[in-house]
Amino acid sequence: MNITLEQAQTAIEAAKKKSAEIGVAMNIAIVDSGANLTAFARMDGAWLGSVDIAIKKAETARYFDMETGEIGKLSQPGQPLFNIEHSNAGLITFPGGVPIKDINGDIIGAIGVSGGAVDQDHEVATYGMNAVK
Amino acid sequence: MNITLEQAQTAIEAAKKKSAEIGVAMNIAIVDSGANLTAFARMDGAWLGSVDIAIKKAETARYFDMETGEIGKLSQPGQPLFNIEHSNAGLITFPGGVPIKDINGDIIGAIGVSGGAVDQDHEVATYGMNAVK
Amino acid sequence: MNITLEQAQTAIEAAKKKSAEIGVAMNIAIVDSGANLTAFARMDGAWLGSVDIAIKKAETARYFDMETGEIGKLSQPGQPLFNIEHSNAGLITFPGGVPIKDINGDIIGAIGVSGGAVDQDHEVATYGMNAVK
Amino acid sequence: MNITLEQAQTAIEAAKKKSAEIGVAMNIAIVDSGANLTAFARMDGAWLGSVDIAIKKAETARYFDMETGEIGKLSQPGQPLFNIEHSNAGLITFPGGVPIKDINGDIIGAIGVSGGAVDQDHEVATYGMNAVK
Repeated sequence: MNITLEQAQTAIEAAKKKSAEIGVAMNIAIVDSGANLTAFARMDGAWLGSVDIAIKKAETARYFDMETGEIGKLSQPGQPLFNIEHSNAGLITFPGGVPIKDINGDIIGAIGVSGGAVDQDHEVATYGMNAVK
Repeated sequence: MNITLEQAQTAIEAAKKKSAEIGVAMNIAIVDSGANLTAFARMDGAWLGSVDIAIKKAETARYFDMETGEIGKLSQPGQPLFNIEHSNAGLITFPGGVPIKDINGDIIGAIGVSGGAVDQDHEVATYGMNAVK
Repeated sequence: MNITLEQAQTAIEAAKKKSAEIGVAMNIAIVDSGANLTAFARMDGAWLGSVDIAIKKAETARYFDMETGEIGKLSQPGQPLFNIEHSNAGLITFPGGVPIKDINGDIIGAIGVSGGAVDQDHEVATYGMNAVK
Repeated sequence: MNITLEQAQTAIEAAKKKSAEIGVAMNIAIVDSGANLTAFARMDGAWLGSVDIAIKKAETARYFDMETGEIGKLSQPGQPLFNIEHSNAGLITFPGGVPIKDINGDIIGAIGVSGGAVDQDHEVATYGMNAVK
């Protein structure tokens, strides 16, 4: 199963709403189950450098079917996946990327958010993910 | 001046409507006046390879402030801009990329569409561009 | 608003003067508000490898609207943005990149300097930034 | 021998003057004898996509010590250097890149100009080259 554009846009609108609520301009990216870009939005004034980071967070979350922050713990110096970021033309492994599941628990895509502090990014990504039913 | 996310999403929704009308699933990308990605949507079932092409068409239209098909005429063998596509990490120079202007005629961004025949791509891009007031 | 070439060249001339004063040959790059290259100068004898670093510092400062050294603190092992440098085709996150604002406080571009010790790079970048009115 | 920054900036100022005279906003790049970027200027309003093209024209002219238009003739379909543009991370082989020589006839760098029609680019590049004594 694959996320639909309608679901992706629902996630983006939810993420925009949460971002406005916490007062940060975010870049929001959705990839499908094949890790291909499905939808994207940069809120007015959001960091330009976060366009690529939001997309890479979404890709990274789907590449490994886990939240990006989890991979980040494993990629610290001395940890098992140190420097995994060199693969796949660049990963982003700090929080803000979250897999999206359907009602059966199957992963159908992922959301990546970038533009604030990493805990804000993660909060917004989780909120957007939860908007997909 | 720079295109807003609201304007970009208006262009995408218009382009989706026109695509549905002509029965083709499209990838639709919007860049701002700095050629940075602002919004993107891949309609369900649209070609995966057209994600990158739609983005590159939008970038190309803003890079040179003209429709991509115009550059394509100039980049044929024996023409003045032959092989210009090797610049800027890859251009796409067939139709489907169109600059977006504000009411004063200033370019505020561009739209790129890919997923159908190039004349369909161009028709949808033009329709999306015209939805921005 | 966007930095003009005249403002960019003023910043470069100021940076060159400061570099000569402290006796280091620098590479100096200016990007506009869209993070696109606007002006560049490599002083005679400046490191060749610093051409790319100066440009990436300017881009990085505009990508995140902060001094590059600030991002560097956040991207150390164990810090929130560890390995952010893998995004955007390569960031440079040590000092020497500084946003440039207009008189209203809006960011209109950024300056990146590379060729000396990082505190020298930062000093020269700041001096160049301050020359833009 | 290598072009100095002072010579490079002289070439850029001359090129700017000629561009203004013919009414086109140009991107102007200077590389040294090692094909490394020495100076660059984007005139206000010049095409964003021509930043990279101006730099690639200057590099290409120095890579092969000839005007870029000459290489373009040799890289047409059926000609000896067809698709040479795939080398060196991308060449630009239409007019606008010109080697710069010192008074002894030794090549010390090259100038690349992009932003107008290719004959305008070539005219401005030649004018800039001639300003270097």
